[in-house]
Amino acid sequence: MQIGIVGLGRMGGNIARRLMKAGHTCVVFDVNPEPGKALAAEGATAVLSLEDMVKTLGKPAAIWSMLPAGDITEATVQALGKLLQADDVIIDGGNAFYKDDIRRAKSMAEKGIHYIDCGTSGGVWGIGRGFCMMIGGNKAAFDRLEPIFVALAPGVGAIERTTGREDAYSRAEMGYIHAGPAGAGHFVKMVHNGIEYGLMQAYAEGFDILQNKASDHLPEDQRFDMNLSDIAEVWRRGSVVSSWLLDLSAIALTKDPKLANFTGYVNDSGEGRWTVEAAIEEAVPADVLTSALYARFRSRQEHTFAERVLSAMRFGFGGHIEGHEPEDPKAAERELAQKAAN
Amino acid sequence: MQIGIVGLGRMGGNIARRLMKAGHTCVVFDVNPEPGKALAAEGATAVLSLEDMVKTLGKPAAIWSMLPAGDITEATVQALGKLLQADDVIIDGGNAFYKDDIRRAKSMAEKGIHYIDCGTSGGVWGIGRGFCMMIGGNKAAFDRLEPIFVALAPGVGAIERTTGREDAYSRAEMGYIHAGPAGAGHFVKMVHNGIEYGLMQAYAEGFDILQNKASDHLPEDQRFDMNLSDIAEVWRRGSVVSSWLLDLSAIALTKDPKLANFTGYVNDSGEGRWTVEAAIEEAVPADVLTSALYARFRSRQEHTFAERVLSAMRFGFGGHIEGHEPEDPKAAERELAQKAAN
Amino acid sequence: MQIGIVGLGRMGGNIARRLMKAGHTCVVFDVNPEPGKALAAEGATAVLSLEDMVKTLGKPAAIWSMLPAGDITEATVQALGKLLQADDVIIDGGNAFYKDDIRRAKSMAEKGIHYIDCGTSGGVWGIGRGFCMMIGGNKAAFDRLEPIFVALAPGVGAIERTTGREDAYSRAEMGYIHAGPAGAGHFVKMVHNGIEYGLMQAYAEGFDILQNKASDHLPEDQRFDMNLSDIAEVWRRGSVVSSWLLDLSAIALTKDPKLANFTGYVNDSGEGRWTVEAAIEEAVPADVLTSALYARFRSRQEHTFAERVLSAMRFGFGGHIEGHEPEDPKAAERELAQKAAN
Amino acid sequence: MQIGIVGLGRMGGNIARRLMKAGHTCVVFDVNPEPGKALAAEGATAVLSLEDMVKTLGKPAAIWSMLPAGDITEATVQALGKLLQADDVIIDGGNAFYKDDIRRAKSMAEKGIHYIDCGTSGGVWGIGRGFCMMIGGNKAAFDRLEPIFVALAPGVGAIERTTGREDAYSRAEMGYIHAGPAGAGHFVKMVHNGIEYGLMQAYAEGFDILQNKASDHLPEDQRFDMNLSDIAEVWRRGSVVSSWLLDLSAIALTKDPKLANFTGYVNDSGEGRWTVEAAIEEAVPADVLTSALYARFRSRQEHTFAERVLSAMRFGFGGHIEGHEPEDPKAAERELAQKAAN
Repeated sequence: MQIGIVGLGRMGGNIARRLMKAGHTCVVFDVNPEPGKALAAEGATAVLSLEDMVKTLGKPAAIWSMLPAGDITEATVQALGKLLQADDVIIDGGNAFYKDDIRRAKSMAEKGIHYIDCGTSGGVWGIGRGFCMMIGGNKAAFDRLEPIFVALAPGVGAIERTTGREDAYSRAEMGYIHAGPAGAGHFVKMVHNGIEYGLMQAYAEGFDILQNKASDHLPEDQRFDMNLSDIAEVWRRGSVVSSWLLDLSAIALTKDPKLANFTGYVNDSGEGRWTVEAAIEEAVPADVLTSALYARFRSRQEHTFAERVLSAMRFGFGGHIEGHEPEDPKAAERELAQKAAN
Repeated sequence: MQIGIVGLGRMGGNIARRLMKAGHTCVVFDVNPEPGKALAAEGATAVLSLEDMVKTLGKPAAIWSMLPAGDITEATVQALGKLLQADDVIIDGGNAFYKDDIRRAKSMAEKGIHYIDCGTSGGVWGIGRGFCMMIGGNKAAFDRLEPIFVALAPGVGAIERTTGREDAYSRAEMGYIHAGPAGAGHFVKMVHNGIEYGLMQAYAEGFDILQNKASDHLPEDQRFDMNLSDIAEVWRRGSVVSSWLLDLSAIALTKDPKLANFTGYVNDSGEGRWTVEAAIEEAVPADVLTSALYARFRSRQEHTFAERVLSAMRFGFGGHIEGHEPEDPKAAERELAQKAAN
Repeated sequence: MQIGIVGLGRMGGNIARRLMKAGHTCVVFDVNPEPGKALAAEGATAVLSLEDMVKTLGKPAAIWSMLPAGDITEATVQALGKLLQADDVIIDGGNAFYKDDIRRAKSMAEKGIHYIDCGTSGGVWGIGRGFCMMIGGNKAAFDRLEPIFVALAPGVGAIERTTGREDAYSRAEMGYIHAGPAGAGHFVKMVHNGIEYGLMQAYAEGFDILQNKASDHLPEDQRFDMNLSDIAEVWRRGSVVSSWLLDLSAIALTKDPKLANFTGYVNDSGEGRWTVEAAIEEAVPADVLTSALYARFRSRQEHTFAERVLSAMRFGFGGHIEGHEPEDPKAAERELAQKAAN
Repeated sequence: MQIGIVGLGRMGGNIARRLMKAGHTCVVFDVNPEPGKALAAEGATAVLSLEDMVKTLGKPAAIWSMLPAGDITEATVQALGKLLQADDVIIDGGNAFYKDDIRRAKSMAEKGIHYIDCGTSGGVWGIGRGFCMMIGGNKAAFDRLEPIFVALAPGVGAIERTTGREDAYSRAEMGYIHAGPAGAGHFVKMVHNGIEYGLMQAYAEGFDILQNKASDHLPEDQRFDMNLSDIAEVWRRGSVVSSWLLDLSAIALTKDPKLANFTGYVNDSGEGRWTVEAAIEEAVPADVLTSALYARFRSRQEHTFAERVLSAMRFGFGGHIEGHEPEDPKAAERELAQKAAN
């Protein structure tokens, strides 16, 4: 089927390519004309504006927005809302905040436009392996778009079937689900990313403990100088901590067990924060997911103000009389006795 | 080659079976004679004491102890230390504390006996899939035992090779490593289990946030009633959180999305605790691994004493005058004013 | 001066009493007429509606709302907005969310009405000891109301002066501050309560560790059966952990060292949650304040769903073949080998 | 009474001075002769060795060791064990690990020597305000030393009495307790310091959130630029977070609200670590105390290895094809498709 794609960065471009490979027709647009030209050379129709896209697409139109969450997605959805008609569909494949989806879907529904939120995981590997999609919104619109989701998803592949799923392959087994009404797709993707933070931090702390076991702060007979690359590799075989994230760690540690090219300044996208906020709204204790988020916050500062407060308290209580060294202990004693007498 | 196996529980028995299947010869012993009989029917030589085992095995002897960490392992190693001779090998395949390994290896080395610690992961799946082994101790003894490790390990299998490992298959890729001197094997296994706790807790919190999104404590238009089984399943396909633990979650949630058969009383084995202690010795901040451990501690209590302290403080400050209800507000006022005047 | 007070619960009633004691005139209202009658007997003018209050008060009017944060405060402020005129003042002394203050102040400013947010700490002790007040909003309106704040605040009292504050007593030393524009008062109060959660949890965990040191799960020669009441008491004398919260703990532990009357079901008001949300907005790692909040969430559940997920994973990996006991080990072996071969 | 004091650093010297002021006789020793000379000028008898001290003291002798926990305390206790006789007393007033106390007390008891462990809080303020003491060990020896503890303790002072303690003043109210057998004193002091870490971190995080509320990363109408010195000060008046640590924060923030003289590199002494280890031994969830400890660990590193692992994973999954930029997208696509096909 035919689909418009707005936003041709790494994710948007790869989605267009995977769709065209599966025989779908793509009309593509980006504010930067270069990636559109490249995709045109591979069979897409590149247009130069949202207006052109809407004119070019047949009815009912389906437009997939693959832009960063925030202002640009908001502006694009609002612009499309003016250009599109009843029964057209907007799919937001970015990492939008699910409450924005709920609001947008309501607003678009007033004109009869369907709004679908599609949480999309796959990273740079998605073009080859397929994308995992968690989708919210109007079920009839979802059904109409299903050939698109099938083409983008990994499919059943060689993955061992889950015990208890002996019947016909379900959507989930092909790599996409209809999670619920508008917002549900991005909510599931948000929690997915929250979990990802926790998993990453668990591995990271474990490797940190392994690496510091060689530290010369430990007694000499308690030190082990271990091969972290081999450890990551062996855990990929028959161990309960095997995972895709471990595979990626193994690649990185094989290239350089010291990871010297990485500074350790770690960004966070919105999903980790929103996951914690959702936990708080639901009164769910989410210690691990929150600690993982905070480790990233901390990684981006040389020192926190909190740490300076700690230093200042320690100075005030245990170390020194605030403001001067007690050169004359008797004077200090008198000063302190006087204070205590107050 | 020939090997003695002490401790024929699920893990010990399966190890014997996997070794015999690969053509090795097993002499087996357990304080309970039943599992030995069963293994004898499958080709093992069952003996009735450690003394018999040592007499039965050729020289140099290799004996694999597969017992719970703690007193019974200690007693068995000490007993074997008296029965064995120089150049014999004791392998501890249980989950011993690595500092006990360091001590035991030193003590055995005085008699020329080699002590090998082998962290073994694989659970009930190991007999079929193979065991992941992290091994510490004397390298020459390790080399001599290598056919045993090859037989127990998963082998290279169908797992995608790690970028950067293009040469001949290494031990790590076959599923076992020599991690370092005595204790290093169990240290790596300990951190492995510490990571496992963190990973499990990350998934658990994520599913908790998904499940509680249907709670009627939330505004009605903010609730999603989602299919957790399908969510676990779709994440197995092309998503960055795919892992073996997720596969196990998918099986459980497919069987019963409410997990009603599980109380949520969660035990911890020693490794999680030792991992945190190692982090503290190394001054490594291990927030996620520690939170995961504490979640298990908390799961086993109806209420902590800490929570009662919180309740008592709240009562004392905000709710009531300690000890009686202020029936006569003026009296309470006077009492409080008097207190404040002190 | 003259002031209207809306909401005559424990806090509102005590504020009226402390103001009247200082010679101020109070016009009071509550949906429940009883507390108004009681205050009238002590010298207040009780009215039966907001309309009456506005008619009764001279101009410019000042009305202090002391209601629970949320719908009722919102409704009261909106109603007052219709009844009041330019230059009148609304003071919200409850625990409102500071973003609501910012919004309300903007909306009231359109009519020339001043909106003051006053975070108020003091609990049941405030009537005698005075209330600590953190105040935001228009500075001129704050200045006009200053006699009210002076009357409610503790005053300089007998507290030792802070080194560096040698000049004339400042507002802070009298127990109230102008923290900034609208919202700043409740923001400071919110962080204050966030800190309170952290402090309380720190003491609570400490007492928990002391209490469990008597547990018979520990080796007998490692157990101490200690007097928690005496420990709390001694820490009040010369120790760096002395504080008001410790004083309250000492009272509770003296009454009953087992705290048997407290279940340990611990509520949280909004401020702890908002503090964590503010930390996330600012990318400040707030591990301790968040853990303290989560401990309260956890205290209110028998078991979390997360814990059931942990149990299910452990069952799936380590304990049993999912769904049936392996009565015929060979069958189980074949089944597992077959799975592994997939 | 007469007492020997070993270790004349800030704490040891101040203890000698406070004792002499109360009329006790001190025989003092330090490996550095200077502080002994200073104390001799104030009335003490300075000796030049442990041997001299034991010769100088009458029988039964009491010797207070005030040295850093660890090797030097161990060596001193062992040396005193050889020099002293039955019924003499060793008091360890430092911050020893309570398990060392248990061991030492047992070993000393073999010779009839009493070993008392005395956790001592008071910092530089103790000489004037008195020291809070938590004491373990033989009760008869404790009773004999009671005049010493009375002299060092703050006494009942002007602190409001705890409701429920209406009878004669107890030891706890004078500022010292007999906590239990050997080790119990240092155990209580250890938990005390663990709590101190948690309290400090709670304040520190709160001030961090206040300070960052002025950050230009926030929307302009959501920023507050607040006076942290005034906030700390106002919380000292009638607020539930008032405490000695807050007093110290107020002093520091009054001197410099930016705390620019403090780097935020925060040390930890052993007690925080031991508190967490005790929590783990008792299976008590101690999230706040542990987070506070980890914040200190983190403060002393530019970046953790864990953070580099996170960066490496993010690079591997989301950002780039490992090892080279995809200059030729078709080549990258082919490479990835090939990988996925494996």
